[in-house]
Amino acid sequence: MQLDETIRTRRSVRSYQARELPPPLVDEILDLARHAPSSMDGQPWCFVVLRDPETKRRLADLKNAYCPPQKRVYPADFLAEAPVIVAVCVHKSRSHGRELENGILATGFLLLAAHARGLAGVYLSAYQKEDPRLAEQIARLLRLGPDVQPVTVVPLGFPREAPPPKLLRPLETMIHHESFDLGLL
Amino acid sequence: MQLDETIRTRRSVRSYQARELPPPLVDEILDLARHAPSSMDGQPWCFVVLRDPETKRRLADLKNAYCPPQKRVYPADFLAEAPVIVAVCVHKSRSHGRELENGILATGFLLLAAHARGLAGVYLSAYQKEDPRLAEQIARLLRLGPDVQPVTVVPLGFPREAPPPKLLRPLETMIHHESFDLGLL
Repeated sequence: MQLDETIRTRRSVRSYQARELPPPLVDEILDLARHAPSSMDGQPWCFVVLRDPETKRRLADLKNAYCPPQKRVYPADFLAEAPVIVAVCVHKSRSHGRELENGILATGFLLLAAHARGLAGVYLSAYQKEDPRLAEQIARLLRLGPDVQPVTVVPLGFPREAPPPKLLRPLETMIHHESFDLGLL
Repeated sequence: MQLDETIRTRRSVRSYQARELPPPLVDEILDLARHAPSSMDGQPWCFVVLRDPETKRRLADLKNAYCPPQKRVYPADFLAEAPVIVAVCVHKSRSHGRELENGILATGFLLLAAHARGLAGVYLSAYQKEDPRLAEQIARLLRLGPDVQPVTVVPLGFPREAPPPKLLRPLETMIHHESFDLGLL
């Protein structure tokens, strides 16, 4: 798929067909995710691929338990129904102080690579800024080593339905020249 | 350009031709950047497009002044030579607590969109985790409003040279199934 079309038609999808994802397809997606830029070219990623129903259910429970009140409109139960969840993690010792940045960039590439293959998913954080417990519990669930930090959890599957086109804020309200123009707010 | 090829051939480039970038080309890239996912679909981005040599020079000086010692192998002086720098910023009031995540994802899409058009750039952070002064000074330089936070600064230009292919860590050392496997470290 062309880059522009991939970017324009990608959507966050939370409902998947029961159909399994062939392991080589997941590997293709992770191969592309690791082409993301990383601080000092540290390439710190590790991807934990989850298919076990019990692990997926426990991950959904953790996400629900630590969901901030204003985001409860999106319960995480659908995680248990995704054929695959990829936990995008980073080695701290390879991250040069940019753990989140490295993990987030790879997740963006992963979502595009999945969409270009007819799959869908949604970006979910594996941590809360104010509360370290979510990341700690995910690390325990996935038995991450002490050097490994979870950054995102991305469910992947063949989408059950095509979401409607997204309404975007007008581009001209987002672009400023030379300095931020308060007049455009 | 196909997504896979775009992802595989993108490189971080710090040396650009003097050739100007037509404004519609920059707008096309920013149009794609704003298709990134964002928390609660807040679409919080604002992009400050810099072409003024004085602003670019001052930004380079700021990045140099706050560069951690271990990263001084990459001085920021080349920023002054880039025909365009895009400062990717976010409105805090639209970010739902995920300022960095929203800004970083749009920057990843921006870099791919630029590369697919024959341009190149490099991901640079507009903040330091431990020292708020870099972000504060960039905000002052760009006269960002109090609700606006800078996340990255991305120089863009036609590349002066093609970087050599990148050596990637083997994929199989990055993939783990069901839980992190200490045996693979």
